[in-house]
Order: sequence, then C-alpha cells, then structure tokens
Amino acid sequence: MSKLLITISREYGSGGLLVGQELAEALGLPCYDKKLLTIAAEKSGFSEEMLRQAESRATNSLLYSLATSLGVGAFGPDTLSLYDKLYLAQFDVIRQMADEGSCVIVGRCADYVLRAYENCYHFFLHAPLEDRMERATKEYGENPNNIKSTVLKHDKARANYYYHYTSQKWGDAKLYDLSLNTSRTGVDGAVKMLLHYLETIHAV
Amino acid sequence: MSKLLITISREYGSGGLLVGQELAEALGLPCYDKKLLTIAAEKSGFSEEMLRQAESRATNSLLYSLATSLGVGAFGPDTLSLYDKLYLAQFDVIRQMADEGSCVIVGRCADYVLRAYENCYHFFLHAPLEDRMERATKEYGENPNNIKSTVLKHDKARANYYYHYTSQKWGDAKLYDLSLNTSRTGVDGAVKMLLHYLETIHAV
Repeated sequence: MSKLLITISREYGSGGLLVGQELAEALGLPCYDKKLLTIAAEKSGFSEEMLRQAESRATNSLLYSLATSLGVGAFGPDTLSLYDKLYLAQFDVIRQMADEGSCVIVGRCADYVLRAYENCYHFFLHAPLEDRMERATKEYGENPNNIKSTVLKHDKARANYYYHYTSQKWGDAKLYDLSLNTSRTGVDGAVKMLLHYLETIHAV
Repeated sequence: MSKLLITISREYGSGGLLVGQELAEALGLPCYDKKLLTIAAEKSGFSEEMLRQAESRATNSLLYSLATSLGVGAFGPDTLSLYDKLYLAQFDVIRQMADEGSCVIVGRCADYVLRAYENCYHFFLHAPLEDRMERATKEYGENPNNIKSTVLKHDKARANYYYHYTSQKWGDAKLYDLSLNTSRTGVDGAVKMLLHYLETIHAV
C-alpha cells in the first residue's frame, strides 16, 4: 500500500480515540495522540509538564480564547507567546511524523496541519450529547453528577483550541473527508466503515 | 427490508442531488426533491408558481435572512407570514411522504423535519469549492464568468434557509449520520459508500 496518512478529529465521548487506535491497529500503523506531546517536549527542549500545562490552560479556559481574540492574553503577552511556541513545536512534530511514514494522528489540529499533504484522509467522529455523557461516565470514569457540563466544557475547549490555530469551525463537515455518528455505528462499526472507505479510495 | 427514510443535504455543485437519485434507484425507493413543491402546491391550495417564487426569494436574498432575523420582513410582515405558511405546507408534505413509506428526500430541511423519525438516516454531501465550481459549469451549465459568486450565493442561500427554519448551522457534521466529500469518492463512489453504510446499519 502507498503512504497513508489519517487524521481523526472527534467529539469528547464519541469513542473517537478508540476508533483511531483500532483503525491504526487494523492497518498496522502507528497511532499518535497525546504521545505527540512527549515527542514535542523531547525535541523542542520544553519540558513535558510545561506542554501539559499549556494544553490544559489553552483548552480549558474561556478566558484563553477571549484573551487570544484580543491579542493580549489573560496570562500576559509573554506567557501566551510561549504557549503558541509550544503548540508550533507540536505541529512541527506532526509534520515530521507524516513525513516519516504512514500513520494515524488523533486530535491536535492534525487535519489542519496536514491539509496540503497527499494521501491524507480526514475523519470526524461525533455522537449525540446524551450518548457521549453516558460513555464519558461509564468508559472514562467521569463524575456523573456534573457530566453534562464536563462534556460541554470539552467540546468548547476543542472548538476554541481549533479555532485559535486554524480560524475554522471545528466539526464543520466540509473540513473532513468523512464524518460519522458513532452512536449509529458503534466503535467497531465505525472502524469497519473507515476501513471500507480506505479500501475503496486508497486500496489499502 | 424494514421501513427506511433517507435525507440528503448537499452543497451546491457537490453532485448530491445525483447521489440521492441514484441511491433511491439502487434501493428501489421514490426520490423527492423539487417534486415536493408541486405536491405541496396541490395539497395546500397555493399555486406552484407561488411556492417557487417564495423559495427563490427566501433562498436567494440576504435581505430575507436579515428581515426574518429582525422579525419584520423586507417584503412586509403579511407577505413574510405567507412564505412561512408555504414552507410549513411543504414540511407537512415531507412528514406525509415519510409516514406513507420508505423514501429518499433531497434538501428542504428534511433532516430537521424528520429528526424524530425512526429508521431515518441523514447524509450530507460536500466538496471543495473549486470542484463545485467546475461541476456547476460543466454539469449544470452555469455561466463560468461569475461561477464562484454563483456557487457561494447558493451556499449562503441554503445556510440562510436552513438556519431560519431550524436555528441550526447547515453543514455542521453533528447534524448528520454520515457526511462525505464527493471529490474524494466521485458520485458513484458516494452512492456505493452510502449503500454499504445502509447495508451494514439497516440491513437493506
């Protein structure tokens, strides 16, 4: 099979990370998700802890998105600039992984970073809110008492993060080659559907 | 096969109408698109010409969306109310068709109208702007000189129309069970992909 790059974007609680991991396994490819943070930390000289903190702040704070839209930053302009450098380091690693060979990348705006790459397929996985609340509670061990706000907070965080770096709307169908409601297919069904797609289009 | 309802939403120039028609043919189901206007006209006592005019105004005018958002209407409140009645008549026909039996419905906010129906699958078909400009010129005979603005005008019109009646963002992946970039699959490939999806999920 010729070189194959796959990006998986997913709503929190849709099972998208699992879909990405199982798809990578079925294709015999490496799957990168949070690992990219470690690799970026090693390569860039930033500590992994700094990257984690940056991600946590950037993706959990509404203040962050307000701050960046104003170009000032609730954490001060210097700090914000550091965060941006950290993300750019991660984006460099994504490009490097893609240059090195076939792989699956979950999250991290990889669809945007690799938008000009050939043989790159972009998938988005989503599910109704109620189903994601249930999955987040049962599978991810989230506290059921405030699960709705937890899931919505993750959605907001991913949308903010994506918009900040791409100026595009996360979850807009036109950004992806194929988008799937995993409540209709299940995780295994989604993996099979994506494999079928790749067999047809890319002859994997 | 048990009752099967399919809605197709599509960007202008994506080949989505053709996908809907070929999918319906492959499944042996009726396909409704603009025909719904004729049926709504017959059933509601409005003339088909009035429905066509209403659609043309509603979907081609930015003024329309401004007017409706203000709740006044560039065409006057009485006229606007008539337009809404015409659309509601069309929505009634969609529900009636869905109640009567399996079918494919293209456009007309059918995904929203039938959102609570069981055994109903919602598909969205899209493609990059350049490819849609080419298709609109070659296949639909649009004037190539101002093709970009023509395609963008249609996009805007569909988004306005959809937002007015549903308060949702047309083309948001989460509204559909499956979304596809037809430039990657071609029209025939998209039909095959949707058939495979339905065979897997619905056992058609």
